[in-house]
Amino acid sequence: MLHLVIADSELELVPKSIRNHPVVVNYARRKGKRPEEVLLDSTYHHTALKKLEDGERRGRPDIVHICLLNALESIADKKGLLRVYVHTRNDEVIYIKPETRIPRNYNRFVGLMESLFKNRVVPRDLELLRMEKKGLKELIDEIKPDGVFIMHENGELLKPQEFGKTLAEIHEPLVVVGGFSHGDFRSEILGKKISIYKAPLMAWTVVNEVITNFEHWVF
Amino acid sequence: MLHLVIADSELELVPKSIRNHPVVVNYARRKGKRPEEVLLDSTYHHTALKKLEDGERRGRPDIVHICLLNALESIADKKGLLRVYVHTRNDEVIYIKPETRIPRNYNRFVGLMESLFKNRVVPRDLELLRMEKKGLKELIDEIKPDGVFIMHENGELLKPQEFGKTLAEIHEPLVVVGGFSHGDFRSEILGKKISIYKAPLMAWTVVNEVITNFEHWVF
Repeated sequence: MLHLVIADSELELVPKSIRNHPVVVNYARRKGKRPEEVLLDSTYHHTALKKLEDGERRGRPDIVHICLLNALESIADKKGLLRVYVHTRNDEVIYIKPETRIPRNYNRFVGLMESLFKNRVVPRDLELLRMEKKGLKELIDEIKPDGVFIMHENGELLKPQEFGKTLAEIHEPLVVVGGFSHGDFRSEILGKKISIYKAPLMAWTVVNEVITNFEHWVF
Repeated sequence: MLHLVIADSELELVPKSIRNHPVVVNYARRKGKRPEEVLLDSTYHHTALKKLEDGERRGRPDIVHICLLNALESIADKKGLLRVYVHTRNDEVIYIKPETRIPRNYNRFVGLMESLFKNRVVPRDLELLRMEKKGLKELIDEIKPDGVFIMHENGELLKPQEFGKTLAEIHEPLVVVGGFSHGDFRSEILGKKISIYKAPLMAWTVVNEVITNFEHWVF
């Protein structure tokens, strides 16, 4: 079983300090929600983000969305060989049942995440998604993997297929992929740093390479 | 060079027969556009779609978006080994320069496609995306590939890595992936039908498997 953690994801509700900013107020009003109920989104809150620490990287639910669509529709997931977790910049962890069908439409996905932040589980009956206050280290300790690999620009350079083979040779490997577009991990993580390409890749590209090259050796 | 065609994609402007439907009129008004200028989108035009032929499969710009984000951010694309084309249900072809950075945000992508339908090239100076009236057969004749493979549920079952090897052994292979969620291809295509899994997969999952398993053998 491969455990995939999308870590330090830029997924959060609008922080308190910018809830009165006009772009946020108008955005929330258009959606019929209160500012504290909507996800921070760099596409719409750009001018407000400039006032926040790390503003240039925050508010990226799109990265989480694309990573999840790819992971949860992968062959590895369908074969029951994959578990996916989302860890956020504010140390929340989203547990996702492997049979979950993530909304294909981005706006619906955002609505689902807003509901998850509010209710902590969605839907109430099936509990396909569940959010807990938890740090990355705590999550990894809980999963108890047999090896932890951190996808990192400065890691040991391996061909994707070589890395896939490494993963397949371990009983319960765990791979950490950063759920952000630039900068480094905020969390401290103990594990082996791996790079699969000589230049930066998007988070979802790394997710695709890790999963398909893992599949290659286990099927 | 691998040529990837997302074929019979459910990407179109709202058809004439439903431009007066309330859900379409309201949707266009909210966007500040005329009904004939907006993309058909099953998420928002569901009740109007019921009145259309093939209504249950039409209006899926999201599938094209996710396929393009994956393909154009792949390692194969960065290495200059991939060309991607989108063919639509109304026989338009979108040519995409490999250096194109597709908007990550879905609503921005929809805006870009609406602009492309209107102006036929975007942006005007760089012409990263260009749309032409063209059938799938005509596109394939123009590319002149050394082999055509159609990803199809009823095709010959090959492991993804076996199929990747097949592709890598051909100088200019062309792979056709359906840009729709259910049903069959509408276009007639001459080529070898291939299946990489015993059950249906999402279009973007097939795109990911084809590209990463092709990379495996050529790097």
